[in-house]
Amino acid sequence: MTKRTLVVIGGDAAGMGAAAQARRNDPELEIIAYERGEHTSYIACGMPYLVAGLVASPDDLVVVPPHVFRERYEIQVHTRHEVVEIDPSEKRVRVERLADGHAFWQSYDELLIATGAVPIIPEIEGVTAEGIFTLKSLASGVALATFVEVTQPQQAVIVGGGYIGLEMAEALRLREIETTLIDLARQVMLTLDEEMASLVADALTKMGVQLYLNEGLVGFETQGGRVRAVVTDQRTLPADLVILGVGIRPNSDLALAAGIPLGVHNAIRVNPQMQTETPHVWAAGDCTESIHRVSGQPVFVALGTVANKTGRIAGLNLTGVPTAFPGVLGTAITKVGETEVARTGLNSQECEELGLDYVVTQITATTPAGFYPGASNIHVRLLAEPGTGRLLGGQIVGGPGSGKRIDSIAASLTAGLTVQDLVDMDLSYAPPFSPVWDPVQTAARVLLRQL
Amino acid sequence: MTKRTLVVIGGDAAGMGAAAQARRNDPELEIIAYERGEHTSYIACGMPYLVAGLVASPDDLVVVPPHVFRERYEIQVHTRHEVVEIDPSEKRVRVERLADGHAFWQSYDELLIATGAVPIIPEIEGVTAEGIFTLKSLASGVALATFVEVTQPQQAVIVGGGYIGLEMAEALRLREIETTLIDLARQVMLTLDEEMASLVADALTKMGVQLYLNEGLVGFETQGGRVRAVVTDQRTLPADLVILGVGIRPNSDLALAAGIPLGVHNAIRVNPQMQTETPHVWAAGDCTESIHRVSGQPVFVALGTVANKTGRIAGLNLTGVPTAFPGVLGTAITKVGETEVARTGLNSQECEELGLDYVVTQITATTPAGFYPGASNIHVRLLAEPGTGRLLGGQIVGGPGSGKRIDSIAASLTAGLTVQDLVDMDLSYAPPFSPVWDPVQTAARVLLRQL
Repeated sequence: MTKRTLVVIGGDAAGMGAAAQARRNDPELEIIAYERGEHTSYIACGMPYLVAGLVASPDDLVVVPPHVFRERYEIQVHTRHEVVEIDPSEKRVRVERLADGHAFWQSYDELLIATGAVPIIPEIEGVTAEGIFTLKSLASGVALATFVEVTQPQQAVIVGGGYIGLEMAEALRLREIETTLIDLARQVMLTLDEEMASLVADALTKMGVQLYLNEGLVGFETQGGRVRAVVTDQRTLPADLVILGVGIRPNSDLALAAGIPLGVHNAIRVNPQMQTETPHVWAAGDCTESIHRVSGQPVFVALGTVANKTGRIAGLNLTGVPTAFPGVLGTAITKVGETEVARTGLNSQECEELGLDYVVTQITATTPAGFYPGASNIHVRLLAEPGTGRLLGGQIVGGPGSGKRIDSIAASLTAGLTVQDLVDMDLSYAPPFSPVWDPVQTAARVLLRQL
Repeated sequence: MTKRTLVVIGGDAAGMGAAAQARRNDPELEIIAYERGEHTSYIACGMPYLVAGLVASPDDLVVVPPHVFRERYEIQVHTRHEVVEIDPSEKRVRVERLADGHAFWQSYDELLIATGAVPIIPEIEGVTAEGIFTLKSLASGVALATFVEVTQPQQAVIVGGGYIGLEMAEALRLREIETTLIDLARQVMLTLDEEMASLVADALTKMGVQLYLNEGLVGFETQGGRVRAVVTDQRTLPADLVILGVGIRPNSDLALAAGIPLGVHNAIRVNPQMQTETPHVWAAGDCTESIHRVSGQPVFVALGTVANKTGRIAGLNLTGVPTAFPGVLGTAITKVGETEVARTGLNSQECEELGLDYVVTQITATTPAGFYPGASNIHVRLLAEPGTGRLLGGQIVGGPGSGKRIDSIAASLTAGLTVQDLVDMDLSYAPPFSPVWDPVQTAARVLLRQL
């Protein structure tokens, strides 16, 4: 019997996580991974801190470099190799070696697509000018950090108030660069309800970020191939640095061309074992759709946590250990200066889109206990189903120590707990950490009266 | 029809929480509360921070003073009044006005006992000497803080390495007082497994606390009625301040004398509605026993969180709103300098005493992400049932941001989740907060292999 071959497309968290897990379970499997960039298994979410100068070297963001995969895991990692075609009928992929353009076919017994997500780049003249960045691979983060270091930009404009926009705004302010953030929506962070997003907007303003909402990108002014200004539908903003964070999409073009069925937002459709609907083709990470654990509906959530989990699960199933991925809650956390921001489950808009009836409350408490030195405000927002009281989602904005409280809500959502369950829950308390009723429970107590 | 009368014994969290909740539901009820001290509804857990000088005034620790209960809630609060006898057959209590010794009978339709817990005071000669303190009421905390402020003690000995001992050690070190802590056990914090407790011991040592374990209190040396030294079975420790934190017991003497059935550790036995086995007599807070949600067994857990919850539930049931208290997990949190300590559920010793088979693991990770500035170690210990994988308990010791993670474990225990559920859980991640796998999940992943 000849060796079975697993081919992995994509060398970041999902792909290499699957490869490493598969190796652990099956020492005989031949594993070949292709990555079009230079790095493997890097912490993409660390790029803002590289730009901020909080992380000294891009190497600090690489979890496992290619040579370690080769030597310790016996995984044949080929960087700067791009898979340009999948041929499921012949069970092979077409690979291009980027160094010299040499192309070849590689056969597989099993194929894992872990091509991630790519930033959406608006089709506007001048978007390729020098000084305009999107964040994609680690290389793009290094390029931005280098640009900031070398050219010392004075005026930055960030387009888009999502996680990348917020974290980059914080990073640039730490660099004392004059920073403006524009967003077409009437709030930052569409994953939050408007009332919570406005608290985040306050935190941005407090950091010295000039914020323009309801304002669309129209074009760029350039000079000698370099960006000089951002033109919006309201004004012209001088800029020698522009960061585009207007959204991402699953990098599913290869799958689409190969006839592998896609789902929501063109993310690759997979079952809980991370199998696509095409035999012997698997997918994991940011290129796939997930099931939302509260709504039961397919969603596109591209986050490192999910990529790591689904990579691991693909690796297990690929080597005969049946494991199902139960789905996501869209849990996320970030910070803007001292203000921590977190969310999980469904927000109001998602409930409305799903036609789900909901009650919602928002409370303000302190963390730690109000009398303790350094106490600051924490705002907790909770959503639940009227009648049953089943929790639907939660959002938190507040000072140091606030954000990670989202995890107790996430655990509650995982188990389908109710508002009453949350009120009764034995959460931890001591004055340096919390009021005697954790703010999450204070919100639950208020919500209980609305059920 | 005459007014119904609720008499409450004890003016702290459970008693006044019940009274306030009862008032909200029933504007007609006559509510009379007796408190032998001067304060109502104070934050007992805040006393170490008063002693440390982190809290300016004892008033900051009073949540609701008596006059507010009288005016806003129409609750007849009588401070400095001690209930000295319960007569359930006649439905009345004997009350002594401490100011002048005047005693009288007060009738009730319903009685709530919320007498709290009292520190265990070793019966050793000299224990009443000046300079030796136990912490009980807010007044005792004020007395200690005043003593520290006025006499400026140089050498303190703390007897007992539980929560009070630890927090007082931290407080005294913040005051730069030379501090020694002795404990008869071979570890501090018996609520933790020994491996975790030794990390707490390290934190104490790092704060400059001299720690003597396996060492018993034998006596005191006094001079002119003031403490001069603590004598242990190993040595004599000069001391001008001694804090006794050797444990607490439910203050159930009144109940016992009245024939109201007691349970574990002589805590008053109550059903989930907070009714004792004596008609029309209820009990809540630190004087009662609770059901442990993991073991299903009655336990004595005296914590502010539980007192607040059970007080609220007693108030609801007293006014015809049926509500059951589902029990406790023994969740607790504290800190020693920068080191945060938290626990929930069952520890190894508790599992052994219950005859429960368990697997256990302990991992070390970082919080925030390892590459992020200021990252420090976090140690997570998890216990689970072999076979089913049901989580049994968790413990955390680590740097800033570690402790409150216990709440995701507490929520998991509440719902009876398994190790696999915890691995799959969508917890929050961003580099300033966490590695991509939250340390709690890293522990779960390791434990999964042991099931």
